[in-house]
Amino acid sequence: MPDAVRIAADLRAMLGSDAVLTEAEDLVRYESGWRYGKGKALLAVRPGTTAEVSKLMAYCHAQGLRVMPQGANTGLVGASNPDASGEMLVLSLERLNKRLEIDPINRTAVVDGGVLLSSLNEALVAQGLMFPIDLGADPTIGGMIVTNTGGTRLLKYGDVRHNLQGVEVVLADGTVVDALNHLRKNNTGLDLKQLFVGTSGVLGVVTGAVLQVVPVPRQQATALVGCASGEAALALLQALERDLADVFTAYEVISANAIIPVFAHHPDIRNPYGTSQPPAYTALVELSSTLPIEALDLPEVLEERLGAFLEGEAGEGITDVFMGKPEDFWAIRHHISEGLRNEGKVLAFDISVPRSRMAAFTTAAVELLAQDYPFVRACDFGHWGDGGTHLNLVWDEAAAPVPTAELVPVLQARIYELAVKGFEGSYSAEHGVGPHNQRFYDAYTPESVKAVNHALKQLLDPGNLMGTTRLD
Amino acid sequence: MPDAVRIAADLRAMLGSDAVLTEAEDLVRYESGWRYGKGKALLAVRPGTTAEVSKLMAYCHAQGLRVMPQGANTGLVGASNPDASGEMLVLSLERLNKRLEIDPINRTAVVDGGVLLSSLNEALVAQGLMFPIDLGADPTIGGMIVTNTGGTRLLKYGDVRHNLQGVEVVLADGTVVDALNHLRKNNTGLDLKQLFVGTSGVLGVVTGAVLQVVPVPRQQATALVGCASGEAALALLQALERDLADVFTAYEVISANAIIPVFAHHPDIRNPYGTSQPPAYTALVELSSTLPIEALDLPEVLEERLGAFLEGEAGEGITDVFMGKPEDFWAIRHHISEGLRNEGKVLAFDISVPRSRMAAFTTAAVELLAQDYPFVRACDFGHWGDGGTHLNLVWDEAAAPVPTAELVPVLQARIYELAVKGFEGSYSAEHGVGPHNQRFYDAYTPESVKAVNHALKQLLDPGNLMGTTRLD
Repeated sequence: MPDAVRIAADLRAMLGSDAVLTEAEDLVRYESGWRYGKGKALLAVRPGTTAEVSKLMAYCHAQGLRVMPQGANTGLVGASNPDASGEMLVLSLERLNKRLEIDPINRTAVVDGGVLLSSLNEALVAQGLMFPIDLGADPTIGGMIVTNTGGTRLLKYGDVRHNLQGVEVVLADGTVVDALNHLRKNNTGLDLKQLFVGTSGVLGVVTGAVLQVVPVPRQQATALVGCASGEAALALLQALERDLADVFTAYEVISANAIIPVFAHHPDIRNPYGTSQPPAYTALVELSSTLPIEALDLPEVLEERLGAFLEGEAGEGITDVFMGKPEDFWAIRHHISEGLRNEGKVLAFDISVPRSRMAAFTTAAVELLAQDYPFVRACDFGHWGDGGTHLNLVWDEAAAPVPTAELVPVLQARIYELAVKGFEGSYSAEHGVGPHNQRFYDAYTPESVKAVNHALKQLLDPGNLMGTTRLD
Repeated sequence: MPDAVRIAADLRAMLGSDAVLTEAEDLVRYESGWRYGKGKALLAVRPGTTAEVSKLMAYCHAQGLRVMPQGANTGLVGASNPDASGEMLVLSLERLNKRLEIDPINRTAVVDGGVLLSSLNEALVAQGLMFPIDLGADPTIGGMIVTNTGGTRLLKYGDVRHNLQGVEVVLADGTVVDALNHLRKNNTGLDLKQLFVGTSGVLGVVTGAVLQVVPVPRQQATALVGCASGEAALALLQALERDLADVFTAYEVISANAIIPVFAHHPDIRNPYGTSQPPAYTALVELSSTLPIEALDLPEVLEERLGAFLEGEAGEGITDVFMGKPEDFWAIRHHISEGLRNEGKVLAFDISVPRSRMAAFTTAAVELLAQDYPFVRACDFGHWGDGGTHLNLVWDEAAAPVPTAELVPVLQARIYELAVKGFEGSYSAEHGVGPHNQRFYDAYTPESVKAVNHALKQLLDPGNLMGTTRLD
């Protein structure tokens, strides 16, 4: 076990006493994730500049100390928590949050890795701009990059990777790599930043970034559309996209099993279906645009397009159309997880399949469960516009014939196998790998990909000191 | 020198006699690029399937033969021509063009690496879809990926990287890497395909791809806007983007020096300025949308927005506004290169700088030239919406005090130094590295980036058998 007292003294001398936390009560918040993940930290260090991160990493490298870089620790796969060994130093980015420079003509923002998404957007909105990754949590930009966060408006804006121009990274030995590219086009060989996107910080600490930002939309329009089947929801998606691609920002689809608990547990949220049983699926359609309403009347356009679709052949699968306020409809979507937790034990998945196979995959999953696990209810919802579904499984622990501890790994293995092998899908659409998905990564990743990761790890962190996720 | 006769016999036995070309007159078209690049091939081989590419690569690997993968050879940096040694085997993808599967609900196309862009778009348009990379040339998809092609509508759609979901790659030793990901979201660690995007095929032959495709716009609107200065052109860009981001597909800016020769040498192309001197810059604005004109009247919106801008303070820099047909205005843009070639010796650059620094960079370049090379005329034009400019320098070779062979390397070194060191810019915005830009790559690439490339090259092509570009 490393000598925490000596190390803390060294680091206080190097970075100031404020920067180093050693007391158990101070460490708690660095040890546990926002929702998931729990470990034990040797100590926590909070450098305030890239130069300080560099010094710290050089020190840890020389001492052979393991390091866990951490942003706001809002990830969902445990990738930013120290492990249980108590040997890992948490490198918190929370004080690396001073740089925040906006260039409105270039439409870019240069930020420190520890800047929060909310702080960035607060600064941007004053200039009519925003970073278009839309999330429930409030992560740091560095954390978003190493997770390659997606969010609810990926359909229009893409993920972090699509909105990232450059990065500044500190490597395991303290080397600072300045790849703070401000260019939309720079075709000069390997795009180095890609190595750090979505790789959980195991190849370097992202201390800065150049982000591409977008104008804030001036208007929105939303509808809820009842669909008799998953196929009907896909036909609607395709038809809307053909006409509305430029302004189509979200297409969320919610199964009856996922929407009913929202209304049951939140009587304040209006149920548009009233006392009727909701149809198999409810699609939440969102349009938004930078154009003023005098040029483009989004609610009118959306209503007209939905009407035209209803009149066509594919419209047979549509049971209801409700036009309404974005905040009301999004409230339904945002209360699903909570609604389900009120129903019993929840096992959440973060699956993607090719968009065209979404309905078939869901049907296959429901059939698999009905046959072998009839006490488990499939409550699926998700970003169908992006091919993503949060298949959530719910059961009454007391009534289940199998203890949860035994059931969970079996269900995970079966559902992931179905998604990955049966439907060309992914076991992690947007959350990342991390300790939570490590065994699925190990099982499903081709050897050629592991070999590339191994070569990169050997080059950039040969002592294997960074993070807990193993990609090689 | 490898024994061409023996090798040809081996390859004919392996792939059929059609697949192998050895006669000098047959080899010419594989030895010279569309515009640039010239070398000498040992022979040319045209496999028809990925399995054949794999067999061929395994053979070359075993024999220590150097290979130049080649698509339609339309690149502009010589990266797909064999070198002058006569030792390189050209691996042409022209017959690897059978797979072309469109999934309209997933909005993807799976294609062989040798499929031409024109063939892909022909198949897509029947379904109301297109691959949104808009180019003058007709490259193969594999070539587009290893070049990371941009094009004139990058402002809205991004480059190839932004529209690529997966790749199939054959490595130097013949290993087939199937990374034909069909998912918009798949956050499972390193995104392997990124290693092959923009790296000129030196890490593997791209034999297949999954491309994200988009609905074909239903309408377009274009305007030419005269701008008294580069700053005025940037102010206009920013204002238009704020309102029109969703439908803003191109923003090209042409200097007076670049536009005058178009009209001088093409009297059939209408000069909207008539007999007046064109202003310092002319901006070509294009909007397009999938929305029908009943929902959004693009020409009206564009005219109204330009009118509103003219009335504001920033509108002082605007000299003229012409509304007109897309084909007429694009004809001007597309005849610039030819116009300039009529004026004298042309030295073309493919530079990018942060968009906000475009006007300042151009001014600095013009001043540098005026002072030290007064016989050289700067004729700049380019994709200002993306921060890209094709600064073209033109001079009368007979009248120049310095021979062209001496002048070119000096001008290149000075202009690139200004862009890269003075303006955080790039010496290759969209064309790539290749032999033409090798010495600038060597000079401007950080050692950390070269080290990563070296590790990848050691892993994937340790014998250094693929291509001519050196990224390590």
